[in-house]
Amino acid sequence: MIRLVMVLHGHQPVGNFDQVFKMAYRKCYRPVLELLDAHPGIKTGIHFSGPLFEWIENNEPESMDMLLSMVQRNQIELLSGGFYEPLLAAIPARDARGQVFLMNNFINERFGVKPEGFWLTERVWDSAIPSILKDTGLSYTVVDDTHFYYAGLKHENIYGTYITEKGGDTLKMMATPMIMRYLIPFRLVEDVISHLKAQEDMGREIAVYGDDMEKFGLWPGTHEWVLEKGWLETFFASIESNTEWLRTELPRDFVSSTPPVGRIYLPQASYEEMTEWALPAEKSHTLQKIIQSLKNDGRWEEWRPFVRGGIWDNFLVKYEESNRMHKKMSFLSELAGDNEEARGYIWRSQCNCAYWHGVFGGLYLGHLRRAIHENLIKAQASILSRSGKKIVMFKEDINRDGHDEIIIWDDQTGIGISPNKGGGIFELCHLPCAINLSDVLTRRHEAYHYELDKVKPGDSPKKDKEGIASIHDISQSGEDLVKLLVYDKYDRISLLDHFLGEDASLRDYAINDYPEDGNFVQGEYTIEQESVTQDYVMIRLSRKGYVGPGRLQINKSINVKNGSGITIDYFFENKSSENLSTRYGCEFNLNLFSDLDPDRYFFFKESGAVRNVSETGQEDNLTIFELINKADRMAVTFEFSRPLSLWFYPLMTVSKSEEGFEYTYQGSSLLFHFPMNLIPSVTDHLQIKITMKHLLSQ
Amino acid sequence: MIRLVMVLHGHQPVGNFDQVFKMAYRKCYRPVLELLDAHPGIKTGIHFSGPLFEWIENNEPESMDMLLSMVQRNQIELLSGGFYEPLLAAIPARDARGQVFLMNNFINERFGVKPEGFWLTERVWDSAIPSILKDTGLSYTVVDDTHFYYAGLKHENIYGTYITEKGGDTLKMMATPMIMRYLIPFRLVEDVISHLKAQEDMGREIAVYGDDMEKFGLWPGTHEWVLEKGWLETFFASIESNTEWLRTELPRDFVSSTPPVGRIYLPQASYEEMTEWALPAEKSHTLQKIIQSLKNDGRWEEWRPFVRGGIWDNFLVKYEESNRMHKKMSFLSELAGDNEEARGYIWRSQCNCAYWHGVFGGLYLGHLRRAIHENLIKAQASILSRSGKKIVMFKEDINRDGHDEIIIWDDQTGIGISPNKGGGIFELCHLPCAINLSDVLTRRHEAYHYELDKVKPGDSPKKDKEGIASIHDISQSGEDLVKLLVYDKYDRISLLDHFLGEDASLRDYAINDYPEDGNFVQGEYTIEQESVTQDYVMIRLSRKGYVGPGRLQINKSINVKNGSGITIDYFFENKSSENLSTRYGCEFNLNLFSDLDPDRYFFFKESGAVRNVSETGQEDNLTIFELINKADRMAVTFEFSRPLSLWFYPLMTVSKSEEGFEYTYQGSSLLFHFPMNLIPSVTDHLQIKITMKHLLSQ
Repeated sequence: MIRLVMVLHGHQPVGNFDQVFKMAYRKCYRPVLELLDAHPGIKTGIHFSGPLFEWIENNEPESMDMLLSMVQRNQIELLSGGFYEPLLAAIPARDARGQVFLMNNFINERFGVKPEGFWLTERVWDSAIPSILKDTGLSYTVVDDTHFYYAGLKHENIYGTYITEKGGDTLKMMATPMIMRYLIPFRLVEDVISHLKAQEDMGREIAVYGDDMEKFGLWPGTHEWVLEKGWLETFFASIESNTEWLRTELPRDFVSSTPPVGRIYLPQASYEEMTEWALPAEKSHTLQKIIQSLKNDGRWEEWRPFVRGGIWDNFLVKYEESNRMHKKMSFLSELAGDNEEARGYIWRSQCNCAYWHGVFGGLYLGHLRRAIHENLIKAQASILSRSGKKIVMFKEDINRDGHDEIIIWDDQTGIGISPNKGGGIFELCHLPCAINLSDVLTRRHEAYHYELDKVKPGDSPKKDKEGIASIHDISQSGEDLVKLLVYDKYDRISLLDHFLGEDASLRDYAINDYPEDGNFVQGEYTIEQESVTQDYVMIRLSRKGYVGPGRLQINKSINVKNGSGITIDYFFENKSSENLSTRYGCEFNLNLFSDLDPDRYFFFKESGAVRNVSETGQEDNLTIFELINKADRMAVTFEFSRPLSLWFYPLMTVSKSEEGFEYTYQGSSLLFHFPMNLIPSVTDHLQIKITMKHLLSQ
Repeated sequence: MIRLVMVLHGHQPVGNFDQVFKMAYRKCYRPVLELLDAHPGIKTGIHFSGPLFEWIENNEPESMDMLLSMVQRNQIELLSGGFYEPLLAAIPARDARGQVFLMNNFINERFGVKPEGFWLTERVWDSAIPSILKDTGLSYTVVDDTHFYYAGLKHENIYGTYITEKGGDTLKMMATPMIMRYLIPFRLVEDVISHLKAQEDMGREIAVYGDDMEKFGLWPGTHEWVLEKGWLETFFASIESNTEWLRTELPRDFVSSTPPVGRIYLPQASYEEMTEWALPAEKSHTLQKIIQSLKNDGRWEEWRPFVRGGIWDNFLVKYEESNRMHKKMSFLSELAGDNEEARGYIWRSQCNCAYWHGVFGGLYLGHLRRAIHENLIKAQASILSRSGKKIVMFKEDINRDGHDEIIIWDDQTGIGISPNKGGGIFELCHLPCAINLSDVLTRRHEAYHYELDKVKPGDSPKKDKEGIASIHDISQSGEDLVKLLVYDKYDRISLLDHFLGEDASLRDYAINDYPEDGNFVQGEYTIEQESVTQDYVMIRLSRKGYVGPGRLQINKSINVKNGSGITIDYFFENKSSENLSTRYGCEFNLNLFSDLDPDRYFFFKESGAVRNVSETGQEDNLTIFELINKADRMAVTFEFSRPLSLWFYPLMTVSKSEEGFEYTYQGSSLLFHFPMNLIPSVTDHLQIKITMKHLLSQ
């Protein structure tokens, strides 16, 4: 008798489009539940993440009833986890525990059961997890066989439960053999059944399968294969017709009736591919080549336990945007104290998907990043509002890079300044709209770009995009894709100071291949002055640097006056004994969240010109510039104390998703520039006033 | 200008022999300190572990003065760490922090400075370390370049400090490039200097070297090379004569004057070799072969960042003896509360060396294990004494294997019983002598055994054993060594129940190659009864099993009466319908800590016979048996309710140390046996009384 222990995991991230939820429900979750309901003999563990549960409860409550009846007849065991699907060890422990209790309570209230097992988000194991789960009532999870191999186990020993421990706290775990993930649901049901029979013949007593439910209808091609053509129905029926040697068993029943085979200590690990993705592109590519060469040489099975890449945390190094969300989240979590409203937003902001990138969009999906920032901003607004203060400033190393950042919040505006990174603004938030305008993505080298030239036009299937408005359909050849690649040399934050060489053109600037005469863009500014009153905060930054052979000092004062926006005063002083003749440019990178929507555009008040977000272009002689985002009912006005020119272009990325390659708008880069001629010791001035407005519905 | 940042780490484990401390001091620590004193221009970080500091302070206080003067003139920076050199993330956080504060205070009191950096024990990194060190004032450490490569860094980027974070707590770290560890002190000084010059020519501003000070006099051959032949003197002089481009700098000065290069997240890691050692022998050997093949093919440098073995915690799976110390330590740490006396012993028991094994003896060194157990027993005695109770019993999963163990303590005796492992006794402690008699070592396959046949007689240099009384000089050929290998099929605990097949002989039994007719040795016993009073504890275990085709029930009652030792009552009942004719044997494995010392022997009171611990032998017709250990002033008496025979043999291991292969006594295996003939439903009885005595000096 072989006991088949299954866990199906369903998840949709915080911030996903309602139509995606709807489509996923229709194409996958609902039909799978219906099939289970029709096959009461098939027992399985199910884990639905909080966002998915909430959507089902609000939109398709009858599925909650169906689940309830299956739970009540002990056909389905519900597994817990952090409610908003966070990586438990990558968020503050207080939040991790809070989110687990939230899920436990949700399941207990809706289904009248106390969960005993949990789904390990992205199977990212960390030795802190046993202590995080202490006293939550959760005692086991399912990982991949890879995890077990990393701990030194031989294949024949991965069957059964193992017990792990840290600081005295224990957890039990089972492993899904890779072969099960390959077979189900991608091979013929008879192949799955023969495999299980062969296992049974060998005397194995358990078969474990824990994987994403989305493989049963949502992955490309699976709706037809698994549901329309009846794979899952056949699978269930085959199990039911082989009861003499095969039966499904709930994970909790297996765990409680079977003592652990042994003790195990796993390293930090995830599934194999994630350890590749977490590495820098070049290393990731090297690792992929190594694995491929091992596979070609038939040595992969032997070497696999010893070959691995990075840990999840490396994404925080690879993507500064991810680190910024992560560290703001940690900062707010510390500040929130017993503010439950803020805590709720913080928990939502911890949904893992937007923090990393592999073959699922993740960080490259602007609407997911935006949802994280939206929740962070709402938490921030709640914390500020309860503090009773109109405006606050923090000076501390928020992003944990060893240098202090400056954070200024009032009830309209949240800005973050990095003195050591060009004195730039890494965060520009509008609180009433809960939008982080600086939520752009730097264009980076990704490991899969190395192989781009091998992509053929047919490789990207037609998309079922369901409202992802910033992603372009591309079914181009690899060579065409390669032409779209541009890599940034620095993080695309704002208020960066350029001195363009004589030959710099918009075209070259936009592809990062132009002469830069200054050393200010990423240079370190010092904080010369800070003033904080009840109504305003002023920070003066200063840097003495080079423009060509000449010496120049920039002082920039950033003023946030409660309710009146941001004013930046630049003073440029020629510190050389020679005349300085150059072109100064101030760079901003701001996100309008779509380049395909005519309701989002640039507006030049003086000329009346309107320019598309998707354009690369130039406007001259402007003193007022507006970013209009009617879809989100938001506008930003820039006013300059002198006429200047603007270069603008969209920040486009080429990224890979489960559906092929995507060419995505990630923000707009703006360079406000003017010629600068300074005789020695003379000072020039520029004032920039930034006003963000919530547009009333029109 | 290149800044050479050095940290020298000196350590001797808790429990090491006084003459080893003395030799190490004379051959290494003292001459290195003298050379530094003579070269005041050479700045370096030094980390001495607590046991080494304590020994120097008690035995060679003038070296403390010499250190003080060098600290006062800012020539030497003292680094902190856990006082007794624990692995910070492998012990309870409360103890880790306590030990760090103890070291901080020690350094502050003796040297008037607050340490800012710490030595990372065995360079075992764990992401829990930043939070363990929160608020300790310690902000940086030195790891190996390997750690940085695992995090995805390229070689050219490992220079400088990186900042890491977990849960918001940060630490900075620097990496020692492998080339530095190869050059210093093993190559000519001029090679080291040319390497540094080449680095300086490339524009590098920092060279980091952090390694064991023992390489400067204590490793085989290094005393002559580094000190007598003047390598270190020449090295220091060469640095002093190249001040125009090279200077030594204290780690704290480098860290405070140089901002971090970037952010880093390390996986759990240690130096490369330890990740091999932590794996099960077979996997460890596979990994070694893989690494060798990569080196042979010239691909090692490219592949190295992606190839690794286990984490330190895997030693707790590989060696049950290590896990037993670890889990008893954790258990006592939880119990100790504010008992500072017990806490002191617990901290000593956390010294890492005896918990694992690589090419240093570690776990294979009986005197190191013994020191751990001694401190654990003293903590246990202190906790019991403060509890006001005469005798206590615990029933809980102490060793975290998913099954409850039974622990019984009175002021004489501590025993631990594993019902699920043959109902065996895994711990038998005598509190007045602070000796754990069951501190034996199971004979295991080690990865280096695979290569044993290639060892030539000259490969094991003559030893400078300094009192390690249980290790035999072996300079045999590999083939002879192979003949010494015996592997155990189960953990060598006590009170295990054998039913010997007809052909079983002492010789075959001793090499684990004999017919076993029962299924009791590792079978699961259930707890039938527990009685706990103020004066005694009684546990009755029961198992119904097979002896050949017959069914037999064993009930064994273990009685501990306060101050009167242990009485075990066995009842054997034939549950078959056939007569049962067999030979029953009760196995004990106890350690006398040396097989070479004539003051330790077996004494047969009735016959007056004395047998050596090193013998494999038999005695018949005994009812009283004594283990005499005059050296430790301890004796154990076994009294049996019926005459029986004894088979005894020494448990010998073949292990590798830095000085070659060692053949070591790890305990004595004793099998008390008698013929058993039971007609159906009849019950037989055996009583064993065990008395441990503290011998008065004679």
